[in-house]
Amino acid sequence: MIDKQIIYKPIGIIHSEHTMAEKTPIQPVYARGCKGHVIVLEEFKAGLSDLDGFSHIYLIYHFNQAPPVKLLVKPFLQDVERGIFSIRAPGRPNSIGLSVVELIRIEDNILYIDGVDILDGTPLLDIKPYTAKFDLHDIRKNGWQDEVDEPTAQKRSKRGYRS
Amino acid sequence: MIDKQIIYKPIGIIHSEHTMAEKTPIQPVYARGCKGHVIVLEEFKAGLSDLDGFSHIYLIYHFNQAPPVKLLVKPFLQDVERGIFSIRAPGRPNSIGLSVVELIRIEDNILYIDGVDILDGTPLLDIKPYTAKFDLHDIRKNGWQDEVDEPTAQKRSKRGYRS
Repeated sequence: MIDKQIIYKPIGIIHSEHTMAEKTPIQPVYARGCKGHVIVLEEFKAGLSDLDGFSHIYLIYHFNQAPPVKLLVKPFLQDVERGIFSIRAPGRPNSIGLSVVELIRIEDNILYIDGVDILDGTPLLDIKPYTAKFDLHDIRKNGWQDEVDEPTAQKRSKRGYRS
Repeated sequence: MIDKQIIYKPIGIIHSEHTMAEKTPIQPVYARGCKGHVIVLEEFKAGLSDLDGFSHIYLIYHFNQAPPVKLLVKPFLQDVERGIFSIRAPGRPNSIGLSVVELIRIEDNILYIDGVDILDGTPLLDIKPYTAKFDLHDIRKNGWQDEVDEPTAQKRSKRGYRS
């Protein structure tokens, strides 16, 4: 089973103001005010019911412009090579992206969102609610991120986006 | 591009004490003490560097025993049909699962984990760190989940697991 291919199809497309990877914020938390919208395919529209009750949602998407896979890579926040599974960079064995974005409103099959760190035109794979019951965990250790102070993180996370 | 298939391959297998879907806890938060381990394929072992510094990690996996897709379905916590994207049930357009689990330790290519709400033998697609900088959000609304009190959630979330 481990060799088996898993096949997904996009359920929609994410649109944002980010057209160049090197100018896209690295995470939603550093993308406040970056608005975007998600167009969900008509055939899945019924699945959006009740989603507008949530202030935050997970978007799971395919990094369709990912660079080649590297198992060790420098995160944007630090000049030290780290294992790919300890960072969020796109060049990973399966190019799956995960962002928690703020849901502003839903109109028909379009989700208007804020805190968008995703490239324009990115294929969407799934949407899940981000909730107090399921998603707030009592973190004890943040690995290499504990070595990065917040001003440095703020500065480096934007990849020159606002400079 | 929207019609394009996206092909992934498992990077490992998740093992747990859960062998029947109907007895598996619905979320890690209701699976405390449910231990498991993840065997990552040897070829990706280098990518695990630095991961042991994090107390919590995201596992992204393929629901390989998912029921047929239904766009409206009753969540385990409530007897009201909800849109599939506002709940976490496995029968979704792309059968992608997402869990935040506690990372106990890593030995070679094996991750020992706690809070496991995942069926034994589930194919793993990706691992990402869960971090204070990126993953703690200021939730204002939890949609239908705000209607479910915590004792009810505790009771219904286990699907008879400990009964």
